[in-house]
Amino acid sequence: MRVIVIGTGLIGTSIALALRECGSSVWLADQDPAAAKLAAELGAGEPLPPGGPPLMAEIAVIAVPPAAVAATLATAQARGLARCYTDVASVKQLPVAQAADRGCDLTCYVPGHPLAGREKHGPAAARADLFLGRTWALCPVPETSTEATEAVTSLVRTCGAVPMRTDIAAHDRWVALISHAPHLVAAAMAARLEAAPAEALDLAGQGLRDVTRIAAGDTALWTQILSANAAPVAEVIAAVAADLAEASRMLADGPGPEGSKSVASLLDRGQAGVARIPGKHGGAAKQFAVVQVVIPDQPGELARLFRATGAAGVNIEDVRIEHSPGLPVGVAELSVRPAEAGMLLDALEAGGWPVRR
Amino acid sequence: MRVIVIGTGLIGTSIALALRECGSSVWLADQDPAAAKLAAELGAGEPLPPGGPPLMAEIAVIAVPPAAVAATLATAQARGLARCYTDVASVKQLPVAQAADRGCDLTCYVPGHPLAGREKHGPAAARADLFLGRTWALCPVPETSTEATEAVTSLVRTCGAVPMRTDIAAHDRWVALISHAPHLVAAAMAARLEAAPAEALDLAGQGLRDVTRIAAGDTALWTQILSANAAPVAEVIAAVAADLAEASRMLADGPGPEGSKSVASLLDRGQAGVARIPGKHGGAAKQFAVVQVVIPDQPGELARLFRATGAAGVNIEDVRIEHSPGLPVGVAELSVRPAEAGMLLDALEAGGWPVRR
Repeated sequence: MRVIVIGTGLIGTSIALALRECGSSVWLADQDPAAAKLAAELGAGEPLPPGGPPLMAEIAVIAVPPAAVAATLATAQARGLARCYTDVASVKQLPVAQAADRGCDLTCYVPGHPLAGREKHGPAAARADLFLGRTWALCPVPETSTEATEAVTSLVRTCGAVPMRTDIAAHDRWVALISHAPHLVAAAMAARLEAAPAEALDLAGQGLRDVTRIAAGDTALWTQILSANAAPVAEVIAAVAADLAEASRMLADGPGPEGSKSVASLLDRGQAGVARIPGKHGGAAKQFAVVQVVIPDQPGELARLFRATGAAGVNIEDVRIEHSPGLPVGVAELSVRPAEAGMLLDALEAGGWPVRR
Repeated sequence: MRVIVIGTGLIGTSIALALRECGSSVWLADQDPAAAKLAAELGAGEPLPPGGPPLMAEIAVIAVPPAAVAATLATAQARGLARCYTDVASVKQLPVAQAADRGCDLTCYVPGHPLAGREKHGPAAARADLFLGRTWALCPVPETSTEATEAVTSLVRTCGAVPMRTDIAAHDRWVALISHAPHLVAAAMAARLEAAPAEALDLAGQGLRDVTRIAAGDTALWTQILSANAAPVAEVIAAVAADLAEASRMLADGPGPEGSKSVASLLDRGQAGVARIPGKHGGAAKQFAVVQVVIPDQPGELARLFRATGAAGVNIEDVRIEHSPGLPVGVAELSVRPAEAGMLLDALEAGGWPVRR
């Protein structure tokens, strides 16, 4: 496949890296030539020659912020850079409307949105595996040709992602709920920490870190995203704000039975909502069993542990290590298929490892 | 040390396990005898005989929900079970006031609160390492004797935690901010998912999972906690609700420059707030460098990788593995001390591992 990536930030460069690993030819362009150069040095492809690629590309991926998509598409189409075009903006109605306004050829444009990202940005943060197993929304408009949709679907699969067809309006409503509103909610909670006493923050545990993590994202990009999906985001966060304001009133009025019932009901609804999120590996959450092993905090111990798990013939699906500096031991949490947990526990215990399921 | 743990849920049993690992004698009691029995079977200690321990305990840890602390303390003191007493409730003013009302002996009572937990509960979820490196607030009241405070501080250190002295009012204000309000915020966001279309949830990424994770906690316990710390929690979530309501209005009014500026300001404040949270290992966040290694998804590969890291003499501080089912490769992210990252990269590359920093 011959692909041009326009915009070599985190997403564009990651797409380029993923395509390169599968043997595609990739040309890179960015309004900041240094960003394109860095992406090329990372192995993401070759800089796009000023006269265009030696052979017309099959696909041009427009990986620029939402408000810049339509102008970039128009320019690329005017230059005849590729047979078809896609973008990666996390809103879809705005770039499509702007592209139509500019008279872009919509027959070869497949609006897209990979549901993947990191807090870091720029080409240096790119990863070829960023899209592995992630959903990638594809939102062809009525004008979009079948050939264009098929070509972009194939690119998405090449990146290791799972294409999901939807229309642009549903897409924007859904990401308002599962991505844009959570970003603002995390920011609003994190904003409370700005003026907090340092002693209060010393008490912070993993819960606070998780709730606020995504609030570290890039303000300029997120302002653009939120503004471009304003109405559905406004609706979700208004509902969140109303629930919190109601809980606040109930608590402030004193912890009577009515207030407790109302707070408990919000907690129950939250629990029900969390339970509906599919697991990280797709399908139901918690599909793995976790085996805990106490390990000395020194070089070679993980090797010894994984020799033992390898010898047991058990595939470790995920590993988390928890320990604190200065303490001589940590705990490795090994996620394995439930059917293999017993075998692993037996093997580790036989090898003298202190285990706990 | 001789310790009685009253209440063998997640926290009580974890304390017992941690103390047992350091050679303490631990007796276990719970209003549900099956819970105490399970904790004993897990190695957390021996069931408390009906007549009390053979020798008076040095400390009784009251690990029951906030509203039950004072009654449990009064009964334990009436039985003369221990020389001093502590509790683990995540609010402190309520149990202290109730204990005073009941005429408990406050000279030997050291109100406490380990900042550690899990979404799971009950003795089976307990871990001896739950408190390793975690902050454990100790809030002696004016009546509390130095001896009692010293004894409980020593217990906290034995559990691997970092004792932090504070007064009960400051404690409750601080945990409202860093624990109780985030719980409600997560619940209010998660509650929006309850009636969401399944297709929307299929788009969910790690961000949504992190923001909502703690909302899976136990409703009854959290209702009690929130009710017992109602005023400071109400204040924090009212401010979060106000910021979200304002952002909602700005977005709903159309994405003008005023609205964008207001939303950007909230995002900036959120970013500043996140940056103030200390890192998981204490001190500044991001103190480790991350080395990414592509690994085949099959038994033995992690062993091979960790043999290579062990041979390089580099201590792996944390490991995360990301891969998706059905794909032949995953990526192991190895966290190491920054000074050792170069050495590890060189060693792995020399060994033929596909690495990316």
